[in-house]
Amino acid sequence: MNSFDMNDWSRRQLLAVEQALTAWVPADAPAGLGEAMRYAVLDGGKRLRPLLVLASLEACGAQAVSAWMSEAGMRAACAIELIHAYSLVHDDMPCMDNDVLRRGKPTVHVKYGQAGALLAGDALQTLAFELLTPDHSDIPAPVQARLCNLLARGAGHAGMAGGQAIDLASVGEQLSLQQLRQMHRCKTGALLETSVQMGAVAAQADAKAMQALLSYGQALGVAFQVVDDILDVTADTAVLGKTAGKDADNNKPTYVSLLGLDGAKKEAAALAQQAQQALADSGLVQTQALQALADWVLQRQH
Amino acid sequence: MNSFDMNDWSRRQLLAVEQALTAWVPADAPAGLGEAMRYAVLDGGKRLRPLLVLASLEACGAQAVSAWMSEAGMRAACAIELIHAYSLVHDDMPCMDNDVLRRGKPTVHVKYGQAGALLAGDALQTLAFELLTPDHSDIPAPVQARLCNLLARGAGHAGMAGGQAIDLASVGEQLSLQQLRQMHRCKTGALLETSVQMGAVAAQADAKAMQALLSYGQALGVAFQVVDDILDVTADTAVLGKTAGKDADNNKPTYVSLLGLDGAKKEAAALAQQAQQALADSGLVQTQALQALADWVLQRQH
Repeated sequence: MNSFDMNDWSRRQLLAVEQALTAWVPADAPAGLGEAMRYAVLDGGKRLRPLLVLASLEACGAQAVSAWMSEAGMRAACAIELIHAYSLVHDDMPCMDNDVLRRGKPTVHVKYGQAGALLAGDALQTLAFELLTPDHSDIPAPVQARLCNLLARGAGHAGMAGGQAIDLASVGEQLSLQQLRQMHRCKTGALLETSVQMGAVAAQADAKAMQALLSYGQALGVAFQVVDDILDVTADTAVLGKTAGKDADNNKPTYVSLLGLDGAKKEAAALAQQAQQALADSGLVQTQALQALADWVLQRQH
Repeated sequence: MNSFDMNDWSRRQLLAVEQALTAWVPADAPAGLGEAMRYAVLDGGKRLRPLLVLASLEACGAQAVSAWMSEAGMRAACAIELIHAYSLVHDDMPCMDNDVLRRGKPTVHVKYGQAGALLAGDALQTLAFELLTPDHSDIPAPVQARLCNLLARGAGHAGMAGGQAIDLASVGEQLSLQQLRQMHRCKTGALLETSVQMGAVAAQADAKAMQALLSYGQALGVAFQVVDDILDVTADTAVLGKTAGKDADNNKPTYVSLLGLDGAKKEAAALAQQAQQALADSGLVQTQALQALADWVLQRQH
């Protein structure tokens, strides 16, 4: 056994991410925009995507992570969290999921109005790309450009936004398991895959490591969504921090509705195992944080 | 007199921009997302921002624009048009300006629903940054990264989105001329300034040219908004392609409400003259297209 302490690791990383987000999401954006942006992103959320970026950076750069690599990793971690936060702000709006509770707090449109939420979400997305392309930085331009491209592809029409479009169109529809997988691979999986890829790019990982981490990210992404569907059925609203039972109420297809609760639990366990196997086959040595994150995705209660 | 023919120049550029947008905005994005994105951006609009990018590229690279510079210019031109298009889609939504007519057609939310419009706008913004960071391209990574950064800053909390937040907060408020200028400098001016800067970066212009073009873009940006306010009062809805008289109906402060119609016309003419002077002082030789665009901004009827 080695001495890796996941609680300690994630406490340190979460603190650093929170400090960076607090510094980089502007308090002084005009007319309340900054306040709404900060409300949407600070002091809440599991921060799974930033942790994946930083765990991937560590796995790929175990030997020598330079100062600019650390900076690139932290910028990537925050940028992807901004994309995630913007998508939640827009998803919660009345014309989408019409949710009033997120992370145990009123959603952004409840607090700042729909126009305020729309704008805050838009500006959070823009800020993600600003963070990735700092002037006067030691981060090499090819790394900056590649991080932007990965993030845009993960978040865009062929990734998260595309998955949301499928999701919208699927309410009340019968989806096959294959169609459900494709939807979630885009909607949730794309950004989780992108997280591990961005960490690897920040560490200038080789092609073999990139491929292994992509496999890990793909399995983890689907596992995450299967567990989400399980929790929507089994967890309390209070524990979940958002309204439970929404998917069933909205007649949305889920892994639980297709596979049953036990079937969904088996599927989640199998996917988490696939993710672990991808790490074992990767040749990377310092993968403890990535392993622990896969365990967490399977076992999480919220 | 030289033989520059603005009609011919802009016809050629507009055709090239339309072809590029048609190729780059995906028809096959899932579940109708691509259709809504294309509806929002193709076959309409003045394309002022792309023309400014390409005119600026030409002014800075008069001697030798390489193949990658041309590609970077076209990608920048399309990227900034995508940002402009996304902002219109979201601005038109019921929670913002609640407009049903844009470029003479039903707005995106009227045609595709509010959720569809929200997502299409989101995905158009993302696509802008994807276009600027192509894999396997001869565009140097520093140019890619710099274009992303300029676009993010022009579109984000300190630029367009910030200006929209001020605009939202100002409905029914008394603004001073200075406050009105600040709002429009962000809301409309930032993206126009960014257009000429992106063209200059694509052409690897020197600092003196960048500064001159920034002055040109700043004056042009305010002139554009002053003329917008004039047209809101004087033009027909049919000619304008959007609902005329909205600002007065919404009790929004405008240059016309602050300066009167004659005062606003004088202001626009003075700003257009400032823009021309910046070009004359720039030392750049092939500025005919930029000159013609400043004339057009002053004289446009829609």
